[in-house]
Amino acid sequence: MRFLHTADWHIGKKLHGFDLTAEQQDAYEQIRQIALDERVDAVVIAGDLYDRSVPNEKSVTQLDAMLQDLNLTHQLPVLAISGNHDSAPRLRTGSPWFTATNFYLHTKLSQAFTPVTLGDTQFFLLPYFEPFEARRYFDDPEITTVQAAMVKIVATMKSTFDPAKKHVLVAHFFAAGSSHVDSETQVMVGGLNVIPVSDLADFDYVALGHLHGKDALHAERVRYSGSPLKFSVSEADQQKGVWIVDTDPFTLTFKPLTPLRDVRILKGAFDDLTAPDFYRQQQVDDYLAIQLTDQRVIPNVMQALREIYPNVIELGRADGPVKLAEELTPVDPHLNPSELFDQFFEETTGSALTEQQCKWAQTALTAANKED
Amino acid sequence: MRFLHTADWHIGKKLHGFDLTAEQQDAYEQIRQIALDERVDAVVIAGDLYDRSVPNEKSVTQLDAMLQDLNLTHQLPVLAISGNHDSAPRLRTGSPWFTATNFYLHTKLSQAFTPVTLGDTQFFLLPYFEPFEARRYFDDPEITTVQAAMVKIVATMKSTFDPAKKHVLVAHFFAAGSSHVDSETQVMVGGLNVIPVSDLADFDYVALGHLHGKDALHAERVRYSGSPLKFSVSEADQQKGVWIVDTDPFTLTFKPLTPLRDVRILKGAFDDLTAPDFYRQQQVDDYLAIQLTDQRVIPNVMQALREIYPNVIELGRADGPVKLAEELTPVDPHLNPSELFDQFFEETTGSALTEQQCKWAQTALTAANKED
Repeated sequence: MRFLHTADWHIGKKLHGFDLTAEQQDAYEQIRQIALDERVDAVVIAGDLYDRSVPNEKSVTQLDAMLQDLNLTHQLPVLAISGNHDSAPRLRTGSPWFTATNFYLHTKLSQAFTPVTLGDTQFFLLPYFEPFEARRYFDDPEITTVQAAMVKIVATMKSTFDPAKKHVLVAHFFAAGSSHVDSETQVMVGGLNVIPVSDLADFDYVALGHLHGKDALHAERVRYSGSPLKFSVSEADQQKGVWIVDTDPFTLTFKPLTPLRDVRILKGAFDDLTAPDFYRQQQVDDYLAIQLTDQRVIPNVMQALREIYPNVIELGRADGPVKLAEELTPVDPHLNPSELFDQFFEETTGSALTEQQCKWAQTALTAANKED
Repeated sequence: MRFLHTADWHIGKKLHGFDLTAEQQDAYEQIRQIALDERVDAVVIAGDLYDRSVPNEKSVTQLDAMLQDLNLTHQLPVLAISGNHDSAPRLRTGSPWFTATNFYLHTKLSQAFTPVTLGDTQFFLLPYFEPFEARRYFDDPEITTVQAAMVKIVATMKSTFDPAKKHVLVAHFFAAGSSHVDSETQVMVGGLNVIPVSDLADFDYVALGHLHGKDALHAERVRYSGSPLKFSVSEADQQKGVWIVDTDPFTLTFKPLTPLRDVRILKGAFDDLTAPDFYRQQQVDDYLAIQLTDQRVIPNVMQALREIYPNVIELGRADGPVKLAEELTPVDPHLNPSELFDQFFEETTGSALTEQQCKWAQTALTAANKED
């Protein structure tokens, strides 16, 4: 059995207000191509297919088309679960019909205990769940944490293990390695809703979703695939991609995805970033978090940057906030609001108000006074 | 070919705030039973499966279960279209998988021209559409009304008619008979988005959804099934049910549904309606529009009625509004607010304020004065 492991598609997610439909489509097509090139026997999607419990019509249409393309057009078996971002009742609409073409979409805890057998492998598809659901399912008031639930869940799954088969768990939760947790993971996960990797030792592989970086966890056979796209600036340094997993003999290969528009941090002086010699060598339509090294006030800075870099998603100063107080002329308490405004305008733009601008300012000040 | 014709399920609809989940489930189970008893070859649902474009999770779960029950459990072919209350993109999720079990759910205009052939019949499933969709589909700027669109749509459908088969149209629009329109229909429909019945003459039967009464239109072979439930007081006099249609020879049989809780108008004097001899013979948990024949003020009238009839959905006076002015003592302009309140309370309840009630009234008046 060779399968592709991906997760956290978050269809419908926006990046600082920017629509990612084109990026999502591009990433999906790369994933499908990898699946076809690698001749996988199945595609595993470990939860958070949508970004929201009530996705909009466009998102519904996009995900539906992707799943049809994978499973109906390309006849790839698909093994998927709902994540914490999905509405399980909405996601599962129609799912009983899907199994006829080997598309298994599990959204209820109870479904996790009926493994899907494909080739040499039993897949256990465990959707995202809350402790109360496990408490009810097992009728056990002692289950108050995901960790406590998982002990029972794994034990129940093991009772259906076919010893002649490999056993793969597909799940959507925080997993923590007891020894090899790096600082990022340490920060992100903790407490009793974290599953120790040692609790998952009976599986040949655990295909996880939830964390967006493939390196969130360092365990050989318990892996996050990460999301196909960078969904925040904090993910700028992550290499996105999917895992190709062979069960016998066990091998794991990471296949990187190339973003249509990358999410990057761009650091430098305003004059350097806006110099043609520099920006002509940049992918200017990447999603950029720009960190200026300047200390001075720069008039209309965002507008000026967006003329070159249309998709600026964050703008900050690399060395802390602009030292306005030191640069500007101290406020003279004897000036009236109109004079103060004139002074401020000249300080920040380098030129005095024109006659028309003066009129606008007067009108605005008069209106503001009236509102008082 | 024998099929069952229903429409306008409006799953998720509330009746004056009352949840209809139980009523919907009961009506569905009657419909399924009729389908099984009548050994129909298919169930036609002519649009408005949901009440809202974004149904809540409970509604999604309920409709999904009904369709699974019909098509997967009972293996009945299902022919359905989206109505104006449905979100076509949401409703069609997964629909390409459904056809494997003869569940055809058409939500795009383009799908209307590929008939579904079952037995001796070609079914044309035409979802609800807006004129702009037809304009775009036919690339014809002249199409600005549903009526103009239908002329082209019917012509296109006819080009695929198999003369050896019967032809049934399933659609969701206003249809108007040119001669036999009764007053109700006359009121409800009109204008250029109404389809003359004569435009539909090429079909052996037209199974319509949109209007909630089976008698909205009087044409032998163009029929509304009406909704399975009464969704407003204006539908109180309608007999709800489904049609059983035989194509060869053509016969039409109406099968009534019995509501779990009926929607009724109850008219009478307050003292009569609240007399045990009367209400013990009533289905007191029906949804009732109560019309009181009394002219007097009745204290706490809704609360008193709901103690007997928990599901009062409307309350009015059969003979116009209560004549408060004539019954109450004329207002003495010399009374202060507190005295006026005392007088009003005694008039309407028949007893004076207690000491505690006086205190509450004083506190409320003081608070109200402060807010001024």
